[in-house]
Amino acid sequence: MAYLAFPPAMRRLVNELTKLPSIGEKSAVRLAYYLLTKEEREVFQLSDAIRAARSAVRLCEECFCLTETPRCVLCSDPNRTQKTICVVEKPADVLAIERAGSFRGRFHVLHGLWSPLRGVSPEQTKIGELLRRIAASNSSPEPIEELILATSTTVEGDATALYIANSVQGLRITRIAQGLPKGGELEYADDVTLQHALQGRRAIG
Amino acid sequence: MAYLAFPPAMRRLVNELTKLPSIGEKSAVRLAYYLLTKEEREVFQLSDAIRAARSAVRLCEECFCLTETPRCVLCSDPNRTQKTICVVEKPADVLAIERAGSFRGRFHVLHGLWSPLRGVSPEQTKIGELLRRIAASNSSPEPIEELILATSTTVEGDATALYIANSVQGLRITRIAQGLPKGGELEYADDVTLQHALQGRRAIG
Repeated sequence: MAYLAFPPAMRRLVNELTKLPSIGEKSAVRLAYYLLTKEEREVFQLSDAIRAARSAVRLCEECFCLTETPRCVLCSDPNRTQKTICVVEKPADVLAIERAGSFRGRFHVLHGLWSPLRGVSPEQTKIGELLRRIAASNSSPEPIEELILATSTTVEGDATALYIANSVQGLRITRIAQGLPKGGELEYADDVTLQHALQGRRAIG
Repeated sequence: MAYLAFPPAMRRLVNELTKLPSIGEKSAVRLAYYLLTKEEREVFQLSDAIRAARSAVRLCEECFCLTETPRCVLCSDPNRTQKTICVVEKPADVLAIERAGSFRGRFHVLHGLWSPLRGVSPEQTKIGELLRRIAASNSSPEPIEELILATSTTVEGDATALYIANSVQGLRITRIAQGLPKGGELEYADDVTLQHALQGRRAIG
């Protein structure tokens, strides 16, 4: 095997890099070569940034978003209403919705979706924490009024949304809209998307 | 900016990751999320592997390939002839030729190509070391007999090969063949490749 020409520390680095998502062996070798021929100071900066970030960052005790403080910046923002909770699968989804910029409520990050096929039960997600959060809010000055279920529109995302909807009473529960994406062409849309787009039609003008 | 929802340590990590080749901002954010939600032990393994590899790996004092010992495994292999030196641009090229598996000589890694346009002079590469290595070999029991110039067939690779060829006397100097790649279709080959393929034709049978 030609990889024997690699020094052992480089083989170990390549091995660690291939564990990263969407980094195959060729990319890992290219990255390793880059790291081994770059200035030591810069390479150590990356190594330290990885360790520091993993050590410093934890989950917000309220919404389970990523944070360095017990409560995240979003949960600490007095200008965001506690009445509306947007439920998403992962921290990256929070960023996507924040980028869109129109939501001014709070989040709840599930860190997983109910997936019998992959052996993930609702208990392995933060659904229990969501139900407790809703129960606790009833005695707060600003109780939760609406739950926006913003999990992906996949089988698992839909199943999780349905599971949560069936577990909660006394709240307005909504699901993000399904339809054609902005700029989407009817000609290329799949059947399910078109069915949703038709069913979800709204009156204009 | 929505990225303000990121904790500072994560922003720093994203910033460091985007410095890597072919990792854009979206990939960096995805990688950072992965690293922040993965088991701490595994993430520290990656951080340590980066630091350890950069600390342990150096350049072979003979051929300037990557190694952890003063001389690399290829230069230390008594079954490889010192009579033929294959000159390449970077360590990854050594791997490519080793993978092809038919070369049993030694290497010389230039760590750069002569490139007036990008302000890289021959002195910034290991060309000087190559010339000294050739001179020193004349008094060794097995002097260098052939130099295979295996830099890329780009303008810079060709210029570097020509520069080396003009700087060396008394050796057989060859350039890797240019022509159609294996499986290449004439119809799609570019003009220069076809010219080289015709000029380099060889008698068969």
